[in-house]
Amino acid sequence: MKERIREQSIQLFAKKGFKETSIQDIVDALKVTKGTFYYYFSTKEQLLNDIHLQYIDDLLNKQEDIINHPSKNSKMKLHEIVYMLISDIEKQGQSALVFFREMRNLSEENLKLIVPKRDQFRLNIQQLIEHGIEKEELRSDLPVDIVTLSILGMTNWSYFWFDPNGRVNDKEVSEIFLKIVLEGLEK
Amino acid sequence: MKERIREQSIQLFAKKGFKETSIQDIVDALKVTKGTFYYYFSTKEQLLNDIHLQYIDDLLNKQEDIINHPSKNSKMKLHEIVYMLISDIEKQGQSALVFFREMRNLSEENLKLIVPKRDQFRLNIQQLIEHGIEKEELRSDLPVDIVTLSILGMTNWSYFWFDPNGRVNDKEVSEIFLKIVLEGLEK
Repeated sequence: MKERIREQSIQLFAKKGFKETSIQDIVDALKVTKGTFYYYFSTKEQLLNDIHLQYIDDLLNKQEDIINHPSKNSKMKLHEIVYMLISDIEKQGQSALVFFREMRNLSEENLKLIVPKRDQFRLNIQQLIEHGIEKEELRSDLPVDIVTLSILGMTNWSYFWFDPNGRVNDKEVSEIFLKIVLEGLEK
Repeated sequence: MKERIREQSIQLFAKKGFKETSIQDIVDALKVTKGTFYYYFSTKEQLLNDIHLQYIDDLLNKQEDIINHPSKNSKMKLHEIVYMLISDIEKQGQSALVFFREMRNLSEENLKLIVPKRDQFRLNIQQLIEHGIEKEELRSDLPVDIVTLSILGMTNWSYFWFDPNGRVNDKEVSEIFLKIVLEGLEK
Protein backbone atom coordinates (compact mmCIF):
# COMPACT_ATOMS: atom_id res chain seq x y z
CA MET A 1 0.00 0.00 0.00
CA LYS A 2 2.83 2.41 0.81
CA GLU A 3 4.20 1.95 -2.71
CA ARG A 4 0.72 2.44 -4.20
CA ILE A 5 0.26 5.70 -2.29
CA ARG A 6 3.64 6.86 -3.53
CA GLU A 7 2.92 5.96 -7.14
CA GLN A 8 -0.53 7.52 -7.16
CA SER A 9 0.83 10.69 -5.55
CA ILE A 10 3.59 10.98 -8.16
CA GLN A 11 0.91 10.89 -10.87
CA LEU A 12 -1.16 13.55 -9.12
CA PHE A 13 1.77 15.82 -8.20
CA ALA A 14 3.08 15.63 -11.77
CA LYS A 15 -0.34 16.48 -13.20
CA LYS A 16 -1.71 19.04 -10.75
CA GLY A 17 1.32 20.17 -8.72
CA PHE A 18 2.22 19.35 -5.13
CA LYS A 19 0.47 22.31 -3.49
CA GLU A 20 -2.66 21.82 -5.57
CA THR A 21 -3.00 18.13 -4.61
CA SER A 22 -4.67 17.40 -1.27
CA ILE A 23 -4.39 14.22 0.79
CA GLN A 24 -8.12 13.86 0.05
CA ASP A 25 -7.31 13.80 -3.70
CA ILE A 26 -4.76 11.04 -3.12
CA VAL A 27 -7.00 8.80 -1.01
CA ASP A 28 -9.97 9.41 -3.37
CA ALA A 29 -7.90 8.27 -6.35
CA LEU A 30 -6.86 5.13 -4.45
CA LYS A 31 -10.33 4.52 -3.00
CA VAL A 32 -8.95 4.25 0.55
CA THR A 33 -9.51 6.31 3.70
CA LYS A 34 -7.38 9.12 5.08
CA GLY A 35 -6.56 6.74 7.96
CA THR A 36 -4.74 4.51 5.50
CA PHE A 37 -2.70 7.48 4.29
CA TYR A 38 -1.76 8.52 7.83
CA TYR A 39 -0.76 4.97 8.70
CA TYR A 40 2.13 5.31 6.22
CA PHE A 41 2.87 9.04 6.11
CA SER A 42 2.49 11.68 8.81
CA THR A 43 2.12 14.59 6.34
CA LYS A 44 2.00 15.35 2.63
CA GLU A 45 5.49 16.90 3.04
CA GLN A 46 6.81 13.62 4.44
CA LEU A 47 5.40 11.79 1.41
CA LEU A 48 7.09 14.29 -0.92
CA ASN A 49 10.35 13.81 0.97
CA ASP A 50 9.95 10.03 0.63
CA ILE A 51 9.44 10.34 -3.15
CA HIS A 52 12.52 12.55 -3.46
CA LEU A 53 14.69 10.23 -1.36
CA GLN A 54 13.66 7.13 -3.27
CA TYR A 55 14.32 8.86 -6.59
CA ILE A 56 17.81 10.13 -5.75
CA ASP A 57 18.83 6.95 -3.88
CA ASP A 58 17.90 4.89 -6.92
CA LEU A 59 19.98 7.13 -9.21
CA LEU A 60 22.93 7.05 -6.79
CA ASN A 61 22.82 3.25 -6.62
CA LYS A 62 22.76 2.90 -10.39
CA GLN A 63 25.55 5.45 -10.71
CA GLU A 64 27.72 3.61 -8.18
CA ASP A 65 27.27 0.32 -10.04
CA ILE A 66 28.56 2.02 -13.18
CA ILE A 67 31.46 3.80 -11.48
CA ASN A 68 32.65 0.72 -9.59
CA HIS A 69 33.01 -1.39 -12.73
CA PRO A 70 36.58 -2.69 -12.63
CA SER A 71 37.58 -2.61 -16.30
CA LYS A 72 35.72 0.19 -18.12
CA ASN A 73 37.45 3.53 -18.74
CA SER A 74 36.12 6.97 -17.69
CA LYS A 75 34.64 7.78 -21.10
CA MET A 76 32.65 4.55 -21.15
CA LYS A 77 31.43 5.15 -17.60
CA LEU A 78 30.43 8.71 -18.44
CA HIS A 79 28.51 7.38 -21.41
CA GLU A 80 26.71 4.85 -19.24
CA ILE A 81 25.73 7.47 -16.67
CA VAL A 82 24.32 9.77 -19.37
CA TYR A 83 22.43 6.84 -20.91
CA MET A 84 21.12 5.80 -17.49
CA LEU A 85 19.75 9.32 -16.90
CA ILE A 86 18.05 9.57 -20.28
CA SER A 87 16.60 6.07 -20.27
CA ASP A 88 15.33 6.87 -16.78
CA ILE A 89 13.00 9.51 -18.27
CA GLU A 90 11.10 6.75 -20.02
CA LYS A 91 10.98 4.56 -16.94
CA GLN A 92 10.12 7.15 -14.37
CA GLY A 93 9.53 10.43 -16.15
CA GLN A 94 6.90 11.64 -13.72
CA SER A 95 9.11 11.02 -10.70
CA ALA A 96 11.78 13.09 -12.42
CA LEU A 97 9.27 15.87 -13.07
CA VAL A 98 8.21 15.89 -9.42
CA PHE A 99 11.87 15.72 -8.36
CA PHE A 100 12.90 18.77 -10.39
CA ARG A 101 9.78 20.87 -9.99
CA GLU A 102 8.70 20.28 -6.40
CA MET A 103 12.12 20.66 -4.75
CA ARG A 104 11.06 24.06 -3.43
CA ASN A 105 8.15 22.51 -1.53
CA LEU A 106 10.45 20.42 0.65
CA SER A 107 10.96 21.58 4.22
CA GLU A 108 14.36 22.86 5.38
CA GLU A 109 14.79 19.67 7.35
CA ASN A 110 14.06 17.42 4.37
CA LEU A 111 16.26 19.49 2.08
CA LYS A 112 19.13 18.74 4.46
CA LEU A 113 18.71 15.06 3.59
CA ILE A 114 18.28 15.45 -0.15
CA VAL A 115 20.61 18.26 -1.20
CA PRO A 116 23.77 16.34 -0.07
CA LYS A 117 22.63 13.36 -2.18
CA ARG A 118 22.10 15.54 -5.25
CA ASP A 119 25.54 17.03 -4.60
CA GLN A 120 26.99 13.53 -4.29
CA PHE A 121 25.59 12.56 -7.69
CA ARG A 122 27.26 15.59 -9.25
CA LEU A 123 30.54 15.07 -7.38
CA ASN A 124 30.68 11.43 -8.51
CA ILE A 125 30.61 12.65 -12.13
CA GLN A 126 33.22 15.27 -11.33
CA GLN A 127 35.51 12.61 -9.83
CA LEU A 128 34.99 10.42 -12.86
CA ILE A 129 36.11 13.29 -15.11
CA GLU A 130 39.08 13.98 -12.84
CA HIS A 131 40.00 10.33 -13.10
CA GLY A 132 39.73 10.57 -16.91
CA ILE A 133 42.08 13.56 -16.85
CA GLU A 134 44.62 11.68 -14.69
CA LYS A 135 44.51 8.75 -17.11
CA GLU A 136 45.01 11.21 -20.00
CA GLU A 137 41.72 10.25 -21.59
CA LEU A 138 40.31 13.77 -21.17
CA ARG A 139 41.70 17.29 -21.59
CA SER A 140 42.94 18.99 -18.45
CA ASP A 141 42.66 22.70 -19.32
CA LEU A 142 38.99 23.29 -18.35
CA PRO A 143 37.60 23.65 -14.79
CA VAL A 144 36.17 20.24 -13.93
CA ASP A 145 33.24 21.58 -11.89
CA ILE A 146 31.92 23.65 -14.80
CA VAL A 147 32.48 20.76 -17.23
CA THR A 148 30.44 18.54 -14.90
CA LEU A 149 27.61 21.08 -14.68
CA SER A 150 27.55 21.44 -18.45
CA ILE A 151 27.13 17.68 -18.93
CA LEU A 152 24.45 17.54 -16.24
CA GLY A 153 22.72 20.49 -17.92
CA MET A 154 22.50 18.75 -21.30
CA THR A 155 21.23 15.61 -19.64
CA ASN A 156 18.84 17.12 -17.11
CA TRP A 157 17.31 19.49 -19.66
CA SER A 158 16.32 16.51 -21.78
CA TYR A 159 13.54 15.89 -19.24
CA PHE A 160 11.81 18.87 -20.82
CA TRP A 161 11.98 17.69 -24.43
CA PHE A 162 12.94 14.01 -24.72
CA ASP A 163 10.07 11.90 -26.04
CA PRO A 164 10.66 8.15 -25.54
CA ASN A 165 8.33 7.55 -28.49
CA GLY A 166 10.04 10.13 -30.70
CA ARG A 167 12.29 9.79 -33.74
CA VAL A 168 15.52 9.42 -31.74
CA ASN A 169 15.62 6.92 -28.86
CA ASP A 170 17.37 7.13 -25.47
CA LYS A 171 20.42 5.22 -26.71
CA GLU A 172 20.85 7.47 -29.73
CA VAL A 173 20.38 10.68 -27.71
CA SER A 174 23.03 9.62 -25.21
CA GLU A 175 25.40 8.72 -28.06
CA ILE A 176 24.90 12.14 -29.66
CA PHE A 177 25.50 13.85 -26.30
CA LEU A 178 28.73 11.91 -25.79
CA LYS A 179 29.95 12.68 -29.30
CA ILE A 180 29.34 16.39 -28.76
CA VAL A 181 30.97 16.40 -25.33
CA LEU A 182 33.95 14.19 -26.19
CA GLU A 183 34.66 15.01 -29.84
CA GLY A 184 33.10 18.47 -30.25
CA LEU A 185 31.18 19.92 -33.18
CA GLU A 186 34.04 21.62 -34.92
CA LYS A 187 34.97 20.22 -38.29
CA MET B 1 3.57 52.33 -13.15
CA LYS B 2 2.98 49.40 -15.50
CA GLU B 3 6.70 48.65 -15.43
CA ARG B 4 6.81 48.96 -11.63
CA ILE B 5 3.91 46.52 -11.26
CA ARG B 6 5.70 44.10 -13.57
CA GLU B 7 9.00 44.39 -11.70
CA GLN B 8 7.44 44.03 -8.27
CA SER B 9 5.43 41.01 -9.42
CA ILE B 10 8.52 39.30 -10.83
CA GLN B 11 10.15 39.66 -7.39
CA LEU B 12 7.09 38.23 -5.64
CA PHE B 13 6.47 35.41 -8.15
CA ALA B 14 10.13 34.41 -7.95
CA LYS B 15 10.08 34.39 -4.16
CA LYS B 16 6.63 32.99 -3.33
CA GLY B 17 5.42 31.43 -6.58
CA PHE B 18 2.74 32.68 -8.97
CA LYS B 19 -0.21 30.87 -7.41
CA GLU B 20 0.82 31.83 -3.90
CA THR B 21 1.03 35.55 -4.75
CA SER B 22 -2.25 37.49 -4.72
CA ILE B 23 -3.01 40.77 -6.45
CA GLN B 24 -3.38 42.15 -2.92
CA ASP B 25 0.26 41.13 -2.18
CA ILE B 26 1.39 42.99 -5.29
CA VAL B 27 -0.48 46.23 -4.59
CA ASP B 28 0.51 46.11 -0.89
CA ALA B 29 4.18 45.84 -1.82
CA LEU B 30 3.80 48.82 -4.17
CA LYS B 31 1.62 50.83 -1.75
CA VAL B 32 -1.02 51.39 -4.43
CA THR B 33 -4.70 50.38 -4.72
CA LYS B 34 -6.15 47.40 -6.56
CA GLY B 35 -7.71 49.96 -8.93
CA THR B 36 -4.22 50.90 -10.09
CA PHE B 37 -3.46 47.24 -10.81
CA TYR B 38 -6.66 46.75 -12.81
CA TYR B 39 -6.01 49.91 -14.81
CA TYR B 40 -3.00 48.14 -16.35
CA PHE B 41 -3.84 44.41 -16.16
CA SER B 42 -7.21 42.69 -16.29
CA THR B 43 -6.05 39.58 -14.37
CA LYS B 44 -3.00 38.12 -12.66
CA GLU B 45 -2.75 35.67 -15.61
CA GLN B 46 -2.56 38.59 -18.04
CA LEU B 47 0.27 40.07 -15.99
CA LEU B 48 2.11 36.71 -16.07
CA ASN B 49 1.59 36.55 -19.82
CA ASP B 50 2.94 40.08 -20.16
CA ILE B 51 6.07 39.14 -18.15
CA HIS B 52 6.64 36.06 -20.32
CA LEU B 53 6.16 37.97 -23.57
CA GLN B 54 8.52 40.75 -22.57
CA TYR B 55 11.15 38.23 -21.51
CA ILE B 56 11.11 36.14 -24.67
CA ASP B 57 10.75 39.16 -27.01
CA ASP B 58 13.82 40.72 -25.44
CA LEU B 59 15.83 37.51 -25.94
CA LEU B 60 14.62 37.16 -29.54
CA ASN B 61 15.61 40.74 -30.32
CA LYS B 62 19.09 40.28 -28.89
CA GLN B 63 19.44 36.98 -30.72
CA GLU B 64 18.44 38.53 -34.05
CA ASP B 65 20.98 41.31 -33.62
CA ILE B 66 23.67 38.66 -33.20
CA ILE B 67 22.51 36.46 -36.07
CA ASN B 68 22.15 39.35 -38.54
CA HIS B 69 25.73 40.51 -38.10
CA PRO B 70 27.16 40.61 -41.63
CA SER B 71 30.75 39.43 -41.10
CA LYS B 72 30.92 37.04 -38.11
CA ASN B 73 30.96 33.29 -38.68
CA SER B 74 28.54 30.74 -37.17
CA LYS B 75 30.87 29.72 -34.35
CA MET B 76 31.31 33.33 -33.25
CA LYS B 77 27.56 33.93 -33.39
CA LEU B 78 26.87 30.77 -31.40
CA HIS B 79 29.36 31.95 -28.81
CA GLU B 80 27.65 35.33 -28.58
CA ILE B 81 24.20 33.75 -28.14
CA VAL B 82 25.47 31.50 -25.34
CA TYR B 83 27.18 34.47 -23.69
CA MET B 84 24.03 36.57 -24.07
CA LEU B 85 21.97 33.88 -22.30
CA ILE B 86 24.39 33.46 -19.40
CA SER B 87 25.01 37.17 -18.87
CA ASP B 88 21.24 37.58 -18.90
CA ILE B 89 21.02 35.55 -15.68
CA GLU B 90 22.86 38.32 -13.90
CA LYS B 91 20.75 41.07 -15.44
CA GLN B 92 17.35 39.47 -15.10
CA GLY B 93 17.72 36.26 -13.16
CA GLN B 94 14.34 36.47 -11.49
CA SER B 95 12.52 36.99 -14.79
CA ALA B 96 14.26 33.88 -16.05
CA LEU B 97 13.18 31.95 -12.98
CA VAL B 98 9.56 33.05 -13.44
CA PHE B 99 9.81 32.29 -17.15
CA PHE B 100 10.98 28.70 -16.63
CA ARG B 101 9.00 27.83 -13.53
CA GLU B 102 5.65 29.50 -14.08
CA MET B 103 5.10 28.45 -17.71
CA ARG B 104 2.52 25.92 -16.58
CA ASN B 105 0.39 28.67 -15.01
CA LEU B 106 -0.20 30.35 -18.38
CA SER B 107 -3.61 29.89 -19.97
CA GLU B 108 -3.97 27.88 -23.19
CA GLU B 109 -4.59 31.13 -25.03
CA ASN B 110 -1.44 32.78 -23.71
CA LEU B 111 0.64 29.67 -24.34
CA LYS B 112 -0.35 29.99 -28.01
CA LEU B 113 1.45 33.33 -28.08
CA ILE B 114 4.54 32.30 -26.14
CA VAL B 115 5.32 28.74 -27.23
CA PRO B 116 5.92 29.75 -30.89
CA LYS B 117 8.38 32.42 -29.72
CA ARG B 118 10.27 29.90 -27.57
CA ASP B 119 10.32 27.58 -30.59
CA GLN B 120 11.60 30.42 -32.75
CA PHE B 121 14.50 31.03 -30.38
CA ARG B 122 15.48 27.37 -30.63
CA LEU B 123 15.00 27.22 -34.41
CA ASN B 124 17.20 30.30 -34.89
CA ILE B 125 20.04 28.42 -33.15
CA GLN B 126 19.30 25.35 -35.24
CA GLN B 127 19.51 27.41 -38.45
CA LEU B 128 22.76 28.94 -37.29
CA ILE B 129 24.22 25.44 -36.80
CA GLU B 130 22.90 24.36 -40.20
CA HIS B 131 24.56 27.39 -41.72
CA GLY B 132 27.81 26.43 -39.95
CA ILE B 133 27.56 22.93 -41.43
CA GLU B 134 27.00 24.34 -44.95
CA LYS B 135 30.04 26.57 -44.56
CA GLU B 136 32.00 23.51 -43.34
CA GLU B 137 32.74 25.11 -39.97
CA LEU B 138 30.81 22.38 -38.12
CA ARG B 139 30.52 18.59 -38.44
CA SER B 140 27.54 17.32 -40.40
CA ASP B 141 27.06 13.80 -39.01
CA LEU B 142 24.86 14.60 -35.98
CA PRO B 143 21.13 15.46 -36.01
CA VAL B 144 20.99 19.24 -35.81
CA ASP B 145 17.83 19.38 -33.68
CA ILE B 146 19.37 17.26 -30.92
CA VAL B 147 22.63 19.22 -31.11
CA THR B 148 20.61 22.42 -30.67
CA LEU B 149 18.73 21.01 -27.67
CA SER B 150 21.96 19.88 -26.06
CA ILE B 151 23.46 23.38 -26.32
CA LEU B 152 20.25 24.94 -24.98
CA GLY B 153 20.29 22.40 -22.15
CA MET B 154 23.80 23.35 -21.03
CA THR B 155 22.91 27.02 -21.21
CA ASN B 156 19.41 26.92 -19.71
CA TRP B 157 20.47 24.65 -16.86
CA SER B 158 23.00 27.27 -15.81
CA TYR B 159 20.06 29.28 -14.44
CA PHE B 160 19.99 26.73 -11.63
CA TRP B 161 23.64 27.01 -10.64
CA PHE B 162 25.37 30.02 -12.17
CA ASP B 163 26.34 32.58 -9.55
CA PRO B 164 27.24 35.97 -11.06
CA ASN B 165 29.36 36.63 -7.96
CA GLY B 166 31.05 33.22 -8.09
CA ARG B 167 34.57 32.19 -9.00
CA VAL B 168 33.93 31.94 -12.75
CA ASN B 169 32.16 34.85 -14.48
CA ASP B 170 29.60 34.82 -17.31
CA LYS B 171 32.26 35.37 -19.99
CA GLU B 172 34.39 32.49 -18.71
CA VAL B 173 31.42 30.10 -18.40
CA SER B 174 30.34 30.80 -21.97
CA GLU B 175 33.93 30.26 -23.18
CA ILE B 176 34.12 26.92 -21.37
CA PHE B 177 30.76 25.86 -22.85
CA LEU B 178 31.92 26.74 -26.35
CA LYS B 179 35.21 24.90 -25.91
CA ILE B 180 33.36 21.77 -24.78
CA VAL B 181 30.79 21.99 -27.57
CA LEU B 182 33.19 22.91 -30.38
CA GLU B 183 36.40 21.14 -29.43
CA GLY B 184 35.20 18.34 -27.13
CA LEU B 185 36.77 17.00 -23.96
CA GLU B 186 38.71 14.13 -25.47
CA LYS B 187 42.44 14.40 -25.28
